[in-house]
Amino acid sequence: MTDKTIGRVNRATSPDLELTLGVPVRVLDHGFVRVVDYMGTDDSIVQAARVSYGEGTKTPSDDRSLIRYLMRHHHTTPFEMCEIKLHLKMPIFVARQWVRHRTASINEYSGRYSVMPAEFYVPEIDDIQSQSATNKQGRGAPIDPEAQHIAQGSIHTMAKAAFGTYEFLAGDGKNKMGVSRELARVILPLSAYTEFYWKIDLHNLLHFLRLRMDSHAQMEIRVYAEVVASFVREWCPVAYEAFDHYRLNGETFSQGEMDVLRALVQAREIEEGLKVLDVGLSAREQQEFLAKF
Amino acid sequence: MTDKTIGRVNRATSPDLELTLGVPVRVLDHGFVRVVDYMGTDDSIVQAARVSYGEGTKTPSDDRSLIRYLMRHHHTTPFEMCEIKLHLKMPIFVARQWVRHRTASINEYSGRYSVMPAEFYVPEIDDIQSQSATNKQGRGAPIDPEAQHIAQGSIHTMAKAAFGTYEFLAGDGKNKMGVSRELARVILPLSAYTEFYWKIDLHNLLHFLRLRMDSHAQMEIRVYAEVVASFVREWCPVAYEAFDHYRLNGETFSQGEMDVLRALVQAREIEEGLKVLDVGLSAREQQEFLAKF
Amino acid sequence: MTDKTIGRVNRATSPDLELTLGVPVRVLDHGFVRVVDYMGTDDSIVQAARVSYGEGTKTPSDDRSLIRYLMRHHHTTPFEMCEIKLHLKMPIFVARQWVRHRTASINEYSGRYSVMPAEFYVPEIDDIQSQSATNKQGRGAPIDPEAQHIAQGSIHTMAKAAFGTYEFLAGDGKNKMGVSRELARVILPLSAYTEFYWKIDLHNLLHFLRLRMDSHAQMEIRVYAEVVASFVREWCPVAYEAFDHYRLNGETFSQGEMDVLRALVQAREIEEGLKVLDVGLSAREQQEFLAKF
Amino acid sequence: MTDKTIGRVNRATSPDLELTLGVPVRVLDHGFVRVVDYMGTDDSIVQAARVSYGEGTKTPSDDRSLIRYLMRHHHTTPFEMCEIKLHLKMPIFVARQWVRHRTASINEYSGRYSVMPAEFYVPEIDDIQSQSATNKQGRGAPIDPEAQHIAQGSIHTMAKAAFGTYEFLAGDGKNKMGVSRELARVILPLSAYTEFYWKIDLHNLLHFLRLRMDSHAQMEIRVYAEVVASFVREWCPVAYEAFDHYRLNGETFSQGEMDVLRALVQAREIEEGLKVLDVGLSAREQQEFLAKF
Repeated sequence: MTDKTIGRVNRATSPDLELTLGVPVRVLDHGFVRVVDYMGTDDSIVQAARVSYGEGTKTPSDDRSLIRYLMRHHHTTPFEMCEIKLHLKMPIFVARQWVRHRTASINEYSGRYSVMPAEFYVPEIDDIQSQSATNKQGRGAPIDPEAQHIAQGSIHTMAKAAFGTYEFLAGDGKNKMGVSRELARVILPLSAYTEFYWKIDLHNLLHFLRLRMDSHAQMEIRVYAEVVASFVREWCPVAYEAFDHYRLNGETFSQGEMDVLRALVQAREIEEGLKVLDVGLSAREQQEFLAKF
Repeated sequence: MTDKTIGRVNRATSPDLELTLGVPVRVLDHGFVRVVDYMGTDDSIVQAARVSYGEGTKTPSDDRSLIRYLMRHHHTTPFEMCEIKLHLKMPIFVARQWVRHRTASINEYSGRYSVMPAEFYVPEIDDIQSQSATNKQGRGAPIDPEAQHIAQGSIHTMAKAAFGTYEFLAGDGKNKMGVSRELARVILPLSAYTEFYWKIDLHNLLHFLRLRMDSHAQMEIRVYAEVVASFVREWCPVAYEAFDHYRLNGETFSQGEMDVLRALVQAREIEEGLKVLDVGLSAREQQEFLAKF
Repeated sequence: MTDKTIGRVNRATSPDLELTLGVPVRVLDHGFVRVVDYMGTDDSIVQAARVSYGEGTKTPSDDRSLIRYLMRHHHTTPFEMCEIKLHLKMPIFVARQWVRHRTASINEYSGRYSVMPAEFYVPEIDDIQSQSATNKQGRGAPIDPEAQHIAQGSIHTMAKAAFGTYEFLAGDGKNKMGVSRELARVILPLSAYTEFYWKIDLHNLLHFLRLRMDSHAQMEIRVYAEVVASFVREWCPVAYEAFDHYRLNGETFSQGEMDVLRALVQAREIEEGLKVLDVGLSAREQQEFLAKF
Repeated sequence: MTDKTIGRVNRATSPDLELTLGVPVRVLDHGFVRVVDYMGTDDSIVQAARVSYGEGTKTPSDDRSLIRYLMRHHHTTPFEMCEIKLHLKMPIFVARQWVRHRTASINEYSGRYSVMPAEFYVPEIDDIQSQSATNKQGRGAPIDPEAQHIAQGSIHTMAKAAFGTYEFLAGDGKNKMGVSRELARVILPLSAYTEFYWKIDLHNLLHFLRLRMDSHAQMEIRVYAEVVASFVREWCPVAYEAFDHYRLNGETFSQGEMDVLRALVQAREIEEGLKVLDVGLSAREQQEFLAKF
């Protein structure tokens, strides 16, 4: 029990993340991500987990092993003890995917209150690709270079025209229609930029990153997720490394797949493999590995 | 305890709501709301509340009083025991407000997988109004009739042009660019229609209705909320009535406002008023009313 | 689009689950689980998923493949479209673990309103085991048979005495103390039974089952989870089978483990294995299997 | 837009709350509350709200007015931008009420992993009262003083006996049964102390306080809520004051009650009352007050 602690303590602080507080990292043509605030560090995960374990257990002996153990066995609640607040600016079609993650707090710029600035996303030439033949929801090969330029021009022109009409509708002066902002904005394109504050805990953020850093995610959200991931790596390096090893670069096999693997590989061979290859598994992880065969 | 119940029971059924299952009610120019499925009725609220009260309490004696008591005292969990699933089609700018309600399940049409049909919202002439002078986020007086027609034309033309460009970009044949759908869609307007399944419990739905039926809500979401409210009225009439009396048509006063009211009104006058006016308060409600003074 | 649908449809119905509605299945010495109501079936998962995919995609061609695809790739939202409501009676120490699952609705019997009935859990002789030497949180070998009987007697006697004192404290008559129920109950044991209504969607329920059917879960919650699982199997058999194949009987390997596996197994060997063993993988699943090597 | 901000900023800091970090405040006989960490201050609420309002609005001019406006009109999302983490030690029957608040993160001491220390709640003599005659769930008049002493003695003795039996069951040495901790604990009383870390945002915390500081809440949770409230008052004094004025000391009237009030009070009388009494309402609040009549 910690109730004997008397006197002041300081807030958990991440020196690396502190250096980036408030500094926007550019994403796409007009977007950014910046860290506004955060709570907790790797130590806070350990601190919360040790409350559960109490005095009755001494192992896992060190903090890194404990965090890896928690990640490996999906003991997710201690990761909820860290929280981060970001300020993001992104095209509306990206924001529409972003808000599908419900366990987060959002305050977004309102096109009902305020004039929408004339900023919109135009893809780089190389990012203009054809519908994928194999992936129903994604991009495939680049299209013909000439077509890429025509497409880019169309995307630019159309958005520009929409913002021109918006200003004509919502403008107040001479030769303007004076229509309310909440109505005029309906002709703005999904490429228009919006911005918002977003607060989320580390557990839910890692889940977000797993989905949005995936190769099946749309490129325009993936680039944001990668910047966010770079912040997490600075903030909670041990938790991020565990996430990288167990989630991003892990693989799951179904019952049928395991039947095949078990027929092909013997536990004894894995023991041999572990001796030959140095893949950095702890004794406990090696034991858990063998238990799957 | 109900563990003595043996044998089959039927699911709670709302005969009135059953009649409307699957039938879309039109909203705006191309939208709709329809009920796909539901679970529970007014009885389910009572049933869940009585589990809490157990055998130790006999009152409140009848179901309507109980539901009103729960609503009045913010005992919200029994209202979570009813669930409804809707199929909705609405403009994207409305859907963007809708998804801000996080305690709900959504499956939305994907513009990455599928071609976006050329359907978009064009406001009625009378709904084209100026920015409100008093309400920073809303509409005020109608604009000049000629301007209304010009504005409506612009909104229609701009959306039409955007869909034309979309088809040019995403189309596959001759003189089409063959750009992936996930990219081509970025030039579509916020007035484009989307559709989704939406599942939510009654407690969270009533909270949604309170915010979105409010006069400060944008007209285009309010008309959807009103159709949803009409379904709730058929589904759980007693709960809806309580919601109407205690939330929609109730008023909250701050400490300072109460100081003024208490100086102006004596409990005795309220007792007199209750005798003269027949406002339908139960004995218990009258008692609670007086206790506020 | 389904907006052309006119006229009545019926609610999705699971004939197998209907047969069990209201019928309690006994668990432990005084507990039970019974299904009170439900919404949706396997078809509802498919229905919601197809809204996302819209008209632009025809495959996956059949419903079972689609559900398995959704489960395999963690497309979890369509599973939220099914909902179930259970009535459960269980010891308080089990209920304390149960409520840690936050995405659910609960109405519990209140010991403040009602007298707590004198029902408490006493373990079977065979379930009285020693602290596990390897698993810090669980049970190991059975203890000495004589000690088992002594322990069972103590557990029974102590709970009996606590309920006796409770009745002495909260009782109203002669030689009773007349203490309020909310206070008298504090001496009741964690083995006392409570009961509650519990409503949860299928996605969150499967997550619950994964954790609580695990061999590391305490036996007394596992037996409840297994009864709940048997209901899910009747309710949504296709989804449950996919859960069984991909979650319950699947295995996840970390980056380091994959390094070893990839060194030991060649994709070519897997192709051979798939020909020899008939593990029921579809062509698509076989392809995804090979892509991991 | 804030994207022009370059360079380091500091985290929002509450000097008053910093002074109490880590220091436990005693509650009941063996419990405590202490602040472990926090994120955000009153300024963070303003900051998030201003993102929504963007550049298009200059008023409400000052921060206090804005926070009060947000509270009054249930614009709750900016209050989610502040987060606090507490370490709490309380009897299990209090913790059972506490965890019913689902929008929070918890890591609790585990009686499966660790030995439960022999600490339990015994009420003060004055807190031993009879069942309320009017409030089905609460306490009424004190019981006879002699009975109070007998009851206190019983509560103490029974808990002491249960812990003695627990040690006999779970103990390992001679004349101990060596039963696993997860099983032995089932005979412990609900008065036994547990402890946990609890992280919650300010919006949900204020909702918790409103329910748990209410006179109908059980005294033993109310004393914890009051200590938590005292921390919130130091942390976000402006938000807490608004909560106090609009929620804790506000009153809500139903449609029927408003009918009576409107018959008894004229808007003109309220205007007069506002001149006579100085209740500190801003011009805008006075306007909103009158609009209710």
